[in-house]
Amino acid sequence: DPVFSTENRYFMTQSERYEGAVKKVIHLRKKMEQLLYLNDHSAVNFRNRSLRALEDVAFGTHSSIFIPTIMNLGTDKQIAKWVPPARNYSIIGTYAQTELAHGTYLRGLETTATFDPSAQEFILNMLEISSMKWWPGDLGRSATHALVLAQLYTEEKCYGMHPFIVQIRSLHDHSPLPGVVVGDIGPKMGLEHVDNGYLLLRNVRIPRENMLSKYSEVSPDGTYVKRGSDRINYFSMIYLRTRIVSVMAATFLSKACVIAIRYSVVQRQSELKPGEPEPKILDYQTQEQKLLPQLATAYALHFVGLSLNAFFNQVYEEIGGKGNFSSLTELRALAAGTKALATDVSTAGVEAVRRACGGHGYSLLSGLPSIYSTLVASCSYEGENTVMLLQTARFLVKSLDRAHSGQSLPASVAYLSVQQSSGCSAKDKVDFLNPYIYIEAYKHRASRVITDAGTKLQSLIQTGIEQHVAWNNTSILLAQAAMVSKTAYFFIVELIQYYTAKFKGCQELRKLLKVNIGVNIRGFSVNSKSPGYVVGVGLTLTVCTHTHSVTLYRKEAVSLVDAFDYSDQQLNSAISSYDGNAYHRLFEWARRAPTNVLVNPAYEKYLKPLLQAAQSKL
Amino acid sequence: DPVFSTENRYFMTQSERYEGAVKKVIHLRKKMEQLLYLNDHSAVNFRNRSLRALEDVAFGTHSSIFIPTIMNLGTDKQIAKWVPPARNYSIIGTYAQTELAHGTYLRGLETTATFDPSAQEFILNMLEISSMKWWPGDLGRSATHALVLAQLYTEEKCYGMHPFIVQIRSLHDHSPLPGVVVGDIGPKMGLEHVDNGYLLLRNVRIPRENMLSKYSEVSPDGTYVKRGSDRINYFSMIYLRTRIVSVMAATFLSKACVIAIRYSVVQRQSELKPGEPEPKILDYQTQEQKLLPQLATAYALHFVGLSLNAFFNQVYEEIGGKGNFSSLTELRALAAGTKALATDVSTAGVEAVRRACGGHGYSLLSGLPSIYSTLVASCSYEGENTVMLLQTARFLVKSLDRAHSGQSLPASVAYLSVQQSSGCSAKDKVDFLNPYIYIEAYKHRASRVITDAGTKLQSLIQTGIEQHVAWNNTSILLAQAAMVSKTAYFFIVELIQYYTAKFKGCQELRKLLKVNIGVNIRGFSVNSKSPGYVVGVGLTLTVCTHTHSVTLYRKEAVSLVDAFDYSDQQLNSAISSYDGNAYHRLFEWARRAPTNVLVNPAYEKYLKPLLQAAQSKL
Repeated sequence: DPVFSTENRYFMTQSERYEGAVKKVIHLRKKMEQLLYLNDHSAVNFRNRSLRALEDVAFGTHSSIFIPTIMNLGTDKQIAKWVPPARNYSIIGTYAQTELAHGTYLRGLETTATFDPSAQEFILNMLEISSMKWWPGDLGRSATHALVLAQLYTEEKCYGMHPFIVQIRSLHDHSPLPGVVVGDIGPKMGLEHVDNGYLLLRNVRIPRENMLSKYSEVSPDGTYVKRGSDRINYFSMIYLRTRIVSVMAATFLSKACVIAIRYSVVQRQSELKPGEPEPKILDYQTQEQKLLPQLATAYALHFVGLSLNAFFNQVYEEIGGKGNFSSLTELRALAAGTKALATDVSTAGVEAVRRACGGHGYSLLSGLPSIYSTLVASCSYEGENTVMLLQTARFLVKSLDRAHSGQSLPASVAYLSVQQSSGCSAKDKVDFLNPYIYIEAYKHRASRVITDAGTKLQSLIQTGIEQHVAWNNTSILLAQAAMVSKTAYFFIVELIQYYTAKFKGCQELRKLLKVNIGVNIRGFSVNSKSPGYVVGVGLTLTVCTHTHSVTLYRKEAVSLVDAFDYSDQQLNSAISSYDGNAYHRLFEWARRAPTNVLVNPAYEKYLKPLLQAAQSKL
Repeated sequence: DPVFSTENRYFMTQSERYEGAVKKVIHLRKKMEQLLYLNDHSAVNFRNRSLRALEDVAFGTHSSIFIPTIMNLGTDKQIAKWVPPARNYSIIGTYAQTELAHGTYLRGLETTATFDPSAQEFILNMLEISSMKWWPGDLGRSATHALVLAQLYTEEKCYGMHPFIVQIRSLHDHSPLPGVVVGDIGPKMGLEHVDNGYLLLRNVRIPRENMLSKYSEVSPDGTYVKRGSDRINYFSMIYLRTRIVSVMAATFLSKACVIAIRYSVVQRQSELKPGEPEPKILDYQTQEQKLLPQLATAYALHFVGLSLNAFFNQVYEEIGGKGNFSSLTELRALAAGTKALATDVSTAGVEAVRRACGGHGYSLLSGLPSIYSTLVASCSYEGENTVMLLQTARFLVKSLDRAHSGQSLPASVAYLSVQQSSGCSAKDKVDFLNPYIYIEAYKHRASRVITDAGTKLQSLIQTGIEQHVAWNNTSILLAQAAMVSKTAYFFIVELIQYYTAKFKGCQELRKLLKVNIGVNIRGFSVNSKSPGYVVGVGLTLTVCTHTHSVTLYRKEAVSLVDAFDYSDQQLNSAISSYDGNAYHRLFEWARRAPTNVLVNPAYEKYLKPLLQAAQSKL
């Protein structure tokens, strides 16, 4: 279908990308309607999977946040009113939470919604430039409605953040309604197809019924009424974070690996043995060690995503079915830490494999720069990574306290209450590839790092330093602890072990497990502390293990890449296609670039007069 | 001067950026002419410094490579013929070396220049798509002439790479000459203002006189004549590499630090102490530890650039004045290693400080994404970094051999022939901040890492493995050795010490030295090998030293940032200006974006029909 063509994406302006993305989503809806697919769950999943690989589809915030939030936080009446027109795109919604001066710290948000009982309306206000909403997707040029997160004031008291549905543009001519200033935040590093926007509201009035009221409501007389727990509120955010692991981290890193590895078995360069043909660049140890660990990480992240998603569904059902909230805290910490870990590791991986393609990796036509610039945003959005790690650290420190007082711990941190063995039993580089030895080493390390951070924190508090100062002065250690804890890095290993056990016959996966161990084991020499667990000769061994494990699976690289099953269209890379014909394609694509198709704007104006002066002389 | 305005740069297309860059260079030349500055050396330097900060000026390859290469490799007659029109922009030249399939490995280049004595001409040919020139700057849309690097064939023998001046476009109407296919390589991650191009030559004939002939010539009868050493050929490349350290690495990292640190003392976020006002984000330990080490590195790179440049000038004079080539090998290794180190470290630094600005760092309007996307190219061009490190490693391994056979070594690797002390004398975290203790530790480490790599290489060769296989299987260790060697990482320390001694009264620089030591010392725990030099408690101490040293100079951060003396126009960042007014500026700039000024292309076509259907219902 030509509407879904990705052919000229790299030549498009921000406006063209946006227009194309809107065109696609509208076209898609028509198709789905024609094919009677709209209510077929597996068809919708298939569509989503295909689109994810194609990217550049509009109204992501509308469908993934605006609608689900109304479903989760709205009353039945509100759902009946707003969701059907939203599903039909008769209204387009955005989720307006982040402000110019406040992102992750929700309590600091400055937008207010004050109840006026005489009119039975809320008055929305953003008094400072800094309180303007900034970044919401689909807001800049599309949205007619915004789910605005604002501090609720009624009877002269603040009740904290609540969600309000505010119409911002006319359904007649799309112009901003009175009191509304709205627009696009302009060019970004990536995500050109999304119209991230700004929104300034001054004395905008909405009916009392527009506050989402499943868990709390303001009565006509202005009384604030709370209904049951609003802890379910966390869920939208947790859901988004768990999705980032699969949809962003695993998908984008695997795409980049496919491109770079296919290119590295086509490109030949330099010489190993004088006089012999130039080897494939993947045959260089330096290239192999840049690419293959990333491929192993891509698979690991895939499994991490699956497992996190399964845990999410389990907790969701526990809460929905039995009102059992006992795993929510653990899920929240796991999602935060894993989101930070996965986006960090995958972003670094994409950039490493991009650079491993040399100059061609710098051309947009390779497909790699846009993978990087899209993915790297995920380190900042839906919870900035350092903030996420510190959130996980809070859970870890609390778990440590519970362990000390003899309480039982959730599964993911159970190792904190077990006495760890005192030394590593690995004697040779291959010993480290034994998952059990490795997991023991990792538990030991995580336990030690968390305990160190906790001890430092306590000792500062005991010297009389205020709690918040002590926390701040320990935050580097705490963030590191979160990174190596079960809730983050360690997570990878156990999972791979799990999936390798599940696909027992699969030799490739067994090797992948070993490469992942090899990749991670190198980290053991960092932050080692006496008395260490892996020390002395062991540290050198970890480096050997790393190099050795990678070389182990050089031969499987191409088939492991093919197994992701991306089509050429999905990869959209001139240097990497299934047929291996990189150079011709790069040349053909470059010839189509606007810089070659358009007249040179500088020639007539600036160059012609100068050049012609020289004609007679040369 | 409005021509130099950077106001709308972030809104421009690739073509507009290119046109603006050409306009600027032409305008500048007029100005210089009017002010009679053309031959005033200090005025030219001042101009270059200002422009560098403004970026986006065309014809960099023309002025920095095309003209200097003719000056260095041309005969007096050739210089007299080509340089004056080039200086007047009556011709525009490019330097066409890199090919689609070959970058850094020059011997692999496929373009040929075959001498035809009957016509007294060279015939230039690129027979495969892969031999097409790819990437040369100013080629895509501007150049009339190209300095083509090609394998010289005469009397049926190949004499290797030589430079030929080839006219590629008509001076009359700028159209490609017969046999020439030329164009722009299309969109890139950055460098939008440069028309990097491709060039395919098929049977293009040029006069015999167009081969640059200072060091070698083809006589009319086809005899190849060599004149003296052509080792000076290296010089263009070495010069470019030394310049990258100052012009790219130090400049770009310092700009990014200025932007991020100014922003971090304006932006307030979250809370440290409940109930108190939100602190500046620089007051968070995690933020401080992200930004301040990068600022210290920026200063270090500035000094590294100065020192490398001084060494370059010294060697240049030794060769020019006395024909003394003895330091050329050392300079070449130093330039390669330092180029790799500086671009790697600065790129990682820019990305770290960009992300430390959260979402706003993702907006082009912050200025940070373009700093990253421009700088990161320098990791790949003028010698890909891994190749550069391995080049340095070759010099190190040779130096080690010389040391073993009792020969004297060049200054930068003299420590390889000295027995290193066996243990570090630091007992406390502040001891590590003593430059002498630190330098001892660094020498010890560099010596050990190089020796390890050399030993591994030798032992592989002794088992009977072919030399080139052994080299490849050691290349990871060798590249690491280059990174920590005197020729690379270690370089920083000695320099800062030198400059701190020079500016003895300057307390800020003393502190900077300590921060740099603190930043680097943390690396000691990586690759530690038993028997280690810094071990056990020492390793933990290095981490404390790091954190401690950074906190030491928190108060100087803003003045160290101001000391770079960038104007708001040079920084071109909405979130960072001298007046600190980040939010208003971000809002004002965003309003000017084309996405807000232009009509929404998607509304009439796609949105209007859907929205209007809903009007009656809501």
